[in-house]
Amino acid sequence: MAPQLDGYFQKVDELSDKFIDRLRQAVAIPSVSAEAARRPDVVRMGQFLADELTKLGASVELRQLGKQEGTDLDLPPVVLARYGNDKSKRTILVYGHYDVQPAQKSDGWDTEPFELVIKEDGRMCGRGSTDDKGPVLGWLNAIEAHQVAGIDFPVNLLMCFEGMEEYGSDGLDDLVYAEGKGFFADADAVCISDNYWLGTEKPCLTYGLRGVNYYNIEVSGPGADLHSGVFGGTAQEPMTDLVRIMASLVDSEGRILIPGIAEQVAPVTPDEEGLYDGISFSMETLYESLGSKTTIFDDKKRTLMARWRFPSLSLHGIEGAFSGSGAKTVIPAKVIGKFSIRTVPNMEIEKTNEAVVRYVEEVFSKLGSKNTLKVYPQHCGRWWVASPNHWNFSAAAKATERVWGVKPDFTREGGSIPVTLTFEQATGKNVLLLPMGSSTDGAHSINEKLDKRNYIEGIKLLGAYLHYVAEEPMN
Amino acid sequence: MAPQLDGYFQKVDELSDKFIDRLRQAVAIPSVSAEAARRPDVVRMGQFLADELTKLGASVELRQLGKQEGTDLDLPPVVLARYGNDKSKRTILVYGHYDVQPAQKSDGWDTEPFELVIKEDGRMCGRGSTDDKGPVLGWLNAIEAHQVAGIDFPVNLLMCFEGMEEYGSDGLDDLVYAEGKGFFADADAVCISDNYWLGTEKPCLTYGLRGVNYYNIEVSGPGADLHSGVFGGTAQEPMTDLVRIMASLVDSEGRILIPGIAEQVAPVTPDEEGLYDGISFSMETLYESLGSKTTIFDDKKRTLMARWRFPSLSLHGIEGAFSGSGAKTVIPAKVIGKFSIRTVPNMEIEKTNEAVVRYVEEVFSKLGSKNTLKVYPQHCGRWWVASPNHWNFSAAAKATERVWGVKPDFTREGGSIPVTLTFEQATGKNVLLLPMGSSTDGAHSINEKLDKRNYIEGIKLLGAYLHYVAEEPMN
Repeated sequence: MAPQLDGYFQKVDELSDKFIDRLRQAVAIPSVSAEAARRPDVVRMGQFLADELTKLGASVELRQLGKQEGTDLDLPPVVLARYGNDKSKRTILVYGHYDVQPAQKSDGWDTEPFELVIKEDGRMCGRGSTDDKGPVLGWLNAIEAHQVAGIDFPVNLLMCFEGMEEYGSDGLDDLVYAEGKGFFADADAVCISDNYWLGTEKPCLTYGLRGVNYYNIEVSGPGADLHSGVFGGTAQEPMTDLVRIMASLVDSEGRILIPGIAEQVAPVTPDEEGLYDGISFSMETLYESLGSKTTIFDDKKRTLMARWRFPSLSLHGIEGAFSGSGAKTVIPAKVIGKFSIRTVPNMEIEKTNEAVVRYVEEVFSKLGSKNTLKVYPQHCGRWWVASPNHWNFSAAAKATERVWGVKPDFTREGGSIPVTLTFEQATGKNVLLLPMGSSTDGAHSINEKLDKRNYIEGIKLLGAYLHYVAEEPMN
Repeated sequence: MAPQLDGYFQKVDELSDKFIDRLRQAVAIPSVSAEAARRPDVVRMGQFLADELTKLGASVELRQLGKQEGTDLDLPPVVLARYGNDKSKRTILVYGHYDVQPAQKSDGWDTEPFELVIKEDGRMCGRGSTDDKGPVLGWLNAIEAHQVAGIDFPVNLLMCFEGMEEYGSDGLDDLVYAEGKGFFADADAVCISDNYWLGTEKPCLTYGLRGVNYYNIEVSGPGADLHSGVFGGTAQEPMTDLVRIMASLVDSEGRILIPGIAEQVAPVTPDEEGLYDGISFSMETLYESLGSKTTIFDDKKRTLMARWRFPSLSLHGIEGAFSGSGAKTVIPAKVIGKFSIRTVPNMEIEKTNEAVVRYVEEVFSKLGSKNTLKVYPQHCGRWWVASPNHWNFSAAAKATERVWGVKPDFTREGGSIPVTLTFEQATGKNVLLLPMGSSTDGAHSINEKLDKRNYIEGIKLLGAYLHYVAEEPMN
């Protein structure tokens, strides 16, 4: 099946220097979406993609999204492109982003962050190499290798590449929902390449993400910050109340102490339990990425389940309290505790919010404080689980086995990629997360890298996936 | 007794416009010690004082203290001055500071902060008016009024005016200890005018201050900050441990939960209990300065005792956690909780530190966390209590009754003024805190003011105090 793949693979190998050079050009554009001063570079990066796509014969549109929320700054355009318009072929919509996280050599990088430096061991270091310029260029490279090899492209490809992903995807949701029945109307499935293998050796396909409900707990009392010498012992201190509330939410073993959360979680079936044993993941790799052995569990299965299919609660910090180094003898007048709950099937956003508000209000009322409490969700995003039995996933699984020689793990992730749910809801089609990079790429860290092997084999994988997509029967 | 005072008082009234003008000139110099760019203004303010003192016939020295810690910035000089050197007179050492807190109109001031604006109701608004330029100039004005009235100055006056009080009094302690047997050697008592009345109507003399032990609780685990999506539920989170420890230190009623603290506090005697009834202080004034009614106690006596003679514990904040507005889904890798205990007689610094460390370690060990804990004092300053029966206090009490027509309250304060203890220890002499301003002056706030009445009567008070000092028998 898919016999054309040998020729395609050979052409990818032959063109690998050119493809690496394309990544080098892209990394050299510091398209940092979080920094206003870099906005022209972000726009330049979008233009670079549009130019490359046009040269490859795609029809391209730079879609303007208006001003960035709360600023006078133009948002970078979304690159919308179509390659092929053959009604007899399936149409696949792919998403990626061309903006990157901030980076400065002085943050601790070994090399210049906006210069692609290839190490002897094959690491290609540079900001955006793996997140997400490598995967985005993967689609372009796949098109080019088909053209050079003279192999018919197996599907129609719709592309949606945004420039604000690292800064909240400002403006994207509206566009995706608006184009669900427009530019994206003939998409048969969606593929997003913007996540990572669970480890460093075994490829995976991702079919689930946790959601996140983010909460503020505000406690206020005095009219302004107070001096602890003058008022300590006489005023009821908002920090005291807040810290006691925060301490009641979760224990050191990660157990959520709020009633009404665990009750909503889908029970683990014996079938599901079996799935975890085969997954390529070791505690050693986790210790390495954690930088310590301070894990809650010591075994793989409970750790993966805690990450993927159980909710967790993290305390992020406190706004309004003293947060500098040194000493300040302040009694903060108003403090806002921040925490979030990672949500899983079958938790409901509203039900979870109600449970949180009821519990926090109860704990506060027991403190007997005269201070004032407000507790409310700051933002909520639903969990996402796709059907891994869909042809979109079976095509990706076959492509993975063909390229990497192993069946991929079917994984979920603990974090959320909100755009996944947006595409699923806007198109009503199956969404697949198909990672190119590995767990040690350090997407948001210093020394971000993409291994040369993952880039080149990844280009093969994306192309092969489209060939299997073309052959896979409906289901 | 002290019959010359009538002539002195009359002269102060006659010269009041000149004295207000002197304060206007001083307020116009933005001697903000916390801002490096303002350092030349701080130096200029020291020079202004030195010039004025020289004109009044004092011998003046601008003592250089070297560089500010950790910087290349010269510290502003300490103004050391002597007025009179008559062995038959008592010698009084006075301390004040000529630097001020930062201020900008945009902070919310109604008027320009570095312009003395006199309102119809007698409020003289301007940064430093009450803290501490008014009181410092009070001593100079007292000298001048004596000269103009042709009244012999009743004591030898030693003056020590520093320019770094609002930024930690960098360099001052060493100078004070070094000059204890040098420039300050013949001081018979010390008077500091750098605090405030308890309310707005009744003057007071202050004979006690609480100390403060400031603590850091460090909890660390992972090698770097983590993403709560990826690691939530699998890593033991330092914030969870820290918040649980902080919640165990004090309750919403202000009760310190650490064993070994209350046991050190001197018991309240029936005599002492009686003292509080007469003190001019109302809960209404407290509610006003607090900006709310969120007090722990509803009565005057327990409130004053909680402020003055019982320890208190305040949670100030957390370093290393998310402290901005909005949302960040971080699991902080290392967090440092900050809290302090205000200390009172007969608490010992070492004993208190041991109790804190033992308790925090115990609470942490019960959490069963794999994270790492460090708990240690960041700085400790002892409480101070002087004898209010000393002639230094009885002279001040008589002067107060003469000027204000009421016997002053004998008060303590809840905060610490570390220089008080330094002067007591360096000179071995009684130290008196003799306030000029009132509780509503807003020393560190916007719209800082000194009432004209408090300034002019305050000048009379400082002069009268020196006359009663000259007459008071040894005790």
